[in-house]
Amino acid sequence: MLIVMHHSASDQQIRAVQEAVSALGLEARPIPGSERTAIGVLGNQGYVDDSSIRELPGVREVIHVSKPYKLVSRDFHPTSSVIDAAGVLIGDGQVPVVMAGPCSIESEEQMVSAARLVKAAGARILRGGAFKPRTGPHSFQGLGIEGLKLLRLAGDEVGLPVITEVMRIEQLDAVCRYADILQIGARNMQNFDLLKEVGKLRYPVLLKRGMSATLEEFLAAAEYIVAEGNERVVLCERGIRTFERATRNTLDLSVVPLIREMSHLPIIVDPSHATGKRSLVPVMSRAALVAGAHGLMIEVHPDPEKALCDGAQSLNGPGFSTLMDELRGLLTYLGY
Amino acid sequence: MLIVMHHSASDQQIRAVQEAVSALGLEARPIPGSERTAIGVLGNQGYVDDSSIRELPGVREVIHVSKPYKLVSRDFHPTSSVIDAAGVLIGDGQVPVVMAGPCSIESEEQMVSAARLVKAAGARILRGGAFKPRTGPHSFQGLGIEGLKLLRLAGDEVGLPVITEVMRIEQLDAVCRYADILQIGARNMQNFDLLKEVGKLRYPVLLKRGMSATLEEFLAAAEYIVAEGNERVVLCERGIRTFERATRNTLDLSVVPLIREMSHLPIIVDPSHATGKRSLVPVMSRAALVAGAHGLMIEVHPDPEKALCDGAQSLNGPGFSTLMDELRGLLTYLGY
Amino acid sequence: MLIVMHHSASDQQIRAVQEAVSALGLEARPIPGSERTAIGVLGNQGYVDDSSIRELPGVREVIHVSKPYKLVSRDFHPTSSVIDAAGVLIGDGQVPVVMAGPCSIESEEQMVSAARLVKAAGARILRGGAFKPRTGPHSFQGLGIEGLKLLRLAGDEVGLPVITEVMRIEQLDAVCRYADILQIGARNMQNFDLLKEVGKLRYPVLLKRGMSATLEEFLAAAEYIVAEGNERVVLCERGIRTFERATRNTLDLSVVPLIREMSHLPIIVDPSHATGKRSLVPVMSRAALVAGAHGLMIEVHPDPEKALCDGAQSLNGPGFSTLMDELRGLLTYLGY
Amino acid sequence: MLIVMHHSASDQQIRAVQEAVSALGLEARPIPGSERTAIGVLGNQGYVDDSSIRELPGVREVIHVSKPYKLVSRDFHPTSSVIDAAGVLIGDGQVPVVMAGPCSIESEEQMVSAARLVKAAGARILRGGAFKPRTGPHSFQGLGIEGLKLLRLAGDEVGLPVITEVMRIEQLDAVCRYADILQIGARNMQNFDLLKEVGKLRYPVLLKRGMSATLEEFLAAAEYIVAEGNERVVLCERGIRTFERATRNTLDLSVVPLIREMSHLPIIVDPSHATGKRSLVPVMSRAALVAGAHGLMIEVHPDPEKALCDGAQSLNGPGFSTLMDELRGLLTYLGY
Repeated sequence: MLIVMHHSASDQQIRAVQEAVSALGLEARPIPGSERTAIGVLGNQGYVDDSSIRELPGVREVIHVSKPYKLVSRDFHPTSSVIDAAGVLIGDGQVPVVMAGPCSIESEEQMVSAARLVKAAGARILRGGAFKPRTGPHSFQGLGIEGLKLLRLAGDEVGLPVITEVMRIEQLDAVCRYADILQIGARNMQNFDLLKEVGKLRYPVLLKRGMSATLEEFLAAAEYIVAEGNERVVLCERGIRTFERATRNTLDLSVVPLIREMSHLPIIVDPSHATGKRSLVPVMSRAALVAGAHGLMIEVHPDPEKALCDGAQSLNGPGFSTLMDELRGLLTYLGY
Repeated sequence: MLIVMHHSASDQQIRAVQEAVSALGLEARPIPGSERTAIGVLGNQGYVDDSSIRELPGVREVIHVSKPYKLVSRDFHPTSSVIDAAGVLIGDGQVPVVMAGPCSIESEEQMVSAARLVKAAGARILRGGAFKPRTGPHSFQGLGIEGLKLLRLAGDEVGLPVITEVMRIEQLDAVCRYADILQIGARNMQNFDLLKEVGKLRYPVLLKRGMSATLEEFLAAAEYIVAEGNERVVLCERGIRTFERATRNTLDLSVVPLIREMSHLPIIVDPSHATGKRSLVPVMSRAALVAGAHGLMIEVHPDPEKALCDGAQSLNGPGFSTLMDELRGLLTYLGY
Repeated sequence: MLIVMHHSASDQQIRAVQEAVSALGLEARPIPGSERTAIGVLGNQGYVDDSSIRELPGVREVIHVSKPYKLVSRDFHPTSSVIDAAGVLIGDGQVPVVMAGPCSIESEEQMVSAARLVKAAGARILRGGAFKPRTGPHSFQGLGIEGLKLLRLAGDEVGLPVITEVMRIEQLDAVCRYADILQIGARNMQNFDLLKEVGKLRYPVLLKRGMSATLEEFLAAAEYIVAEGNERVVLCERGIRTFERATRNTLDLSVVPLIREMSHLPIIVDPSHATGKRSLVPVMSRAALVAGAHGLMIEVHPDPEKALCDGAQSLNGPGFSTLMDELRGLLTYLGY
Repeated sequence: MLIVMHHSASDQQIRAVQEAVSALGLEARPIPGSERTAIGVLGNQGYVDDSSIRELPGVREVIHVSKPYKLVSRDFHPTSSVIDAAGVLIGDGQVPVVMAGPCSIESEEQMVSAARLVKAAGARILRGGAFKPRTGPHSFQGLGIEGLKLLRLAGDEVGLPVITEVMRIEQLDAVCRYADILQIGARNMQNFDLLKEVGKLRYPVLLKRGMSATLEEFLAAAEYIVAEGNERVVLCERGIRTFERATRNTLDLSVVPLIREMSHLPIIVDPSHATGKRSLVPVMSRAALVAGAHGLMIEVHPDPEKALCDGAQSLNGPGFSTLMDELRGLLTYLGY
């Protein structure tokens, strides 16, 4: 931590800051400059709450060097993690995985049909939403536990592990009974209680980036899970909220190589939610793999025009099949 | 809903869209233009999911006229609502309320001391956090139920109703036992299950705007609560996330008069979280009241330098007392 | 400047950074920590370009302590500046000024009529646009020099100094002939050549914040003007671009007290462009004055329904007159 | 254009809106709905300024169907444009072009050395900045005309056409004398006078997206150039400003396929400015090509550690050479 004093800070103010640092059990080391004094803080084992210092008289700025995460950083864990998600390996050196299926589970027929076509096209994990977060209360909210059973049934039918979103702690028992991988949605990225609970489980977790989460907050959220003992976390970039509304969100693809530098956890991309437009999904899927994503999550519906949710960003069977063919070619080119 | 076709859309494409609209049980009315055709959609009782239409061939854009909320809008409920929050009236025609207290409950001494000073200065509701959402897992997480008891004790000691944040459904029983008003934090604004549960209660609810929530999403979140039967919702602007980081968030004060136009629910402002800087809290408190806020939520700590959380944005006793004196003068000027 | 090394940085990498710092003529002082080493940099007289250091092996982050501005900062110029704008004083201790008039100059009749009503209502500076920046080329682009003459004529008719936007250097001669105060618009806040040219003049300059400019960039833009010798700069907050589109821009009102802390230059607010909605202009004008603005810039048109530009955010004569009455009451309350 | 009335709008208010529409010479067609009336507007040949309508009593919202651009849209010009930039063809069906060189021209030695290495590695256009927009006035501002001469000399030396940024109209003569392609920088994307002037020339223009420009504004800026008669416009995505500061900007790569849908103009990507980090440039260059970019603009410096500008995002010779080898492989895979 570095404390930057005002140009006009008095010696007494500088001493007061040094004392406040000492009161935290840390060491203060002044660095006099030509224009102002800065005070380096030594001795902290991690992120320090600067509340008691930031507004002291004469302080202009407090700059953090430590980050609010440590276990998930490559700094402290240089080797890339490979996550075993129900037998599918995700991470460096593994063939990038494709998770696919409908936004929401609507019926046995829809779900089994979706499962068959994503399996046939080459997806290795089946997705489907039973509990749906929707902006307004008057939209379809998902089938709940009935949906979980249909997801399991469809996964078993075609032999694919299944992933589904869990929105609240009370759903964990049910979701764990039927699903292989737990998904934490963007709106729950900072639902810290939920993060801690899944941290106590041994299920692999897909953690989606919040729509206004910085990279630092994203990794700190993952730290919540890992700190509880569950190291099987896969990160997922799904677009952030910006001033640009021509796409549903803004896909922040640069975050993929950057997370690979900063963290040992695998990172996948969800081009469906990021763009919100079916026509952009194939091209951004390819770009994501080239950017180094360890996998993709893609919305597929047997009949998008009739989908109860997100039809506009869902591929249909032939569209998904074509995309998977293209991806196979690309993966070969990339050396997989 | 209005469907805008491409300049080059064929008659067949236009017909296909009309049929898709009919399939939703709605009426399609084409509006031919000089450059392109638009199709007006009639007959919907509220927001329509456009997934089945948006990506049909020839469709350029789908524009929504209906909003994902209705019960909270002034369009359908022209009279302003006044919320009775444990005897304190919040809304049009009422003296704006000040809720004050520490970010987090730390000890009996701290909490009672805080209660005394905010009461003495004129606050009418006591705040304090027992369950704390923190970016990283290594920060202080709050005292939990023990904290709730201290909050109640402190409120009773000085005769003030108390408000505290509830982060998960399982906490509702405990929070309802000790608190008078429930607070839903910014990170939970779209925790829809939690919204529904508090919607089933008869407790007043303070709903904070999510840090990247549009006005439309904010009102739709309130709609979740009201739709379940609980009409006692107070909205709270607490700053949004933007590119500007000189303040903790960007206080979107224009939203106050805008919400007063669009909704009948009262709206208060939290200048502490919005600015993150103690020196800005008094001036933005005054600006908020002038902008029409029905109240303020302000962080106050008997000894901010020792606060476990958010000390940098907390006022101390004398600072808060001075602010309340200023606000009294301002309220007199404003006619209260 | 502080250079933060990676946890795993080698001694050799640390030495290489020290040498790179020395090569810049600066002194490097290592601060070993428990987790990593940081290197303080001493001896710089101002902002240092860190390009040669930021990507050296082992460097995690470079943190700047110095800012890209100095002359405009209160750190180095503690006394507030009062700007004489054609006889109207703007700054601390002065009655806040109201500049008003139409978005664009349309005709002699419109301009004189506008001048009369803003003068009658109490505005002290007349505004009007002769050169208009418009998003698309097919919109009305302003009357140009003909407009400047009408603005001068209208100002003289009612005895008010006039302000108008200058968009390019070649317009400076003409604008200086007819106007008393030069306005640099938001889109030109980083038109550095233009800034330098107005910096060489002795005309007062109103500098509007760019729609995605940070506070630091805003002040650095003002530094361009002051560095050339023209200290008569008035800053203007006019809303920033965020994800929220319910208002035209997001008025960042907290920036007013913050700029007053950081800079000695006066700061005014333009609620018309910030909100884009006529109904919000009066309330946000009052809030701006309470937040400490040294003045307001307000769009007024004798007949907004017929305005060629920005009619939706313009007040008409009676609306402006009512607002000015309210502001007079508020200013009395504020002690002016 | 569609005008949406309030739920409670009176018949008289609806009639007043119809009359206001007629006054604009357009036709108003009411669409009564179950909850409210909307009014379709017919007869406009392009974008209509809604100022006279938006704030009429009873109007809730005005929705635009027409866009502020037309000539650059694929709707009206379905065939993709291929731009001849000094003999290098840019656009659909052409091998994507790489433009490379230093951020700023520093000396003959630096520039010729840079030219040699980018030519040797396979770049087809040489870039270099003579006029530099810098946030603060105390940074290096470029060599000016001397720099232009060095750029030309270096380009001639190796036989590459050259591109450089023009910041103001007065520079156009000099820039046109020495450069083959004109670059309009992000900060000048809405410098409409400059756009019009380059629109009158016959030089190819590279137009960079403003850092807070929407897609619509970006295309409207291009429309300014094309409307003046110069159709040789190449668009360039270079990152937008968002809340995320881990990268210098947020590269909005989805915009590449989206612009290809919406416009016939070619679009290239600048990964250097978008990410601001040398280590991310190669991977995002590859992703950009896969996303469909018609080319790349990459900062290369013979000795980035000594660069006067943007060294941290510049590749050195070997780094660029390696990247070009990778790109050649990728282009082969992509069928070029």
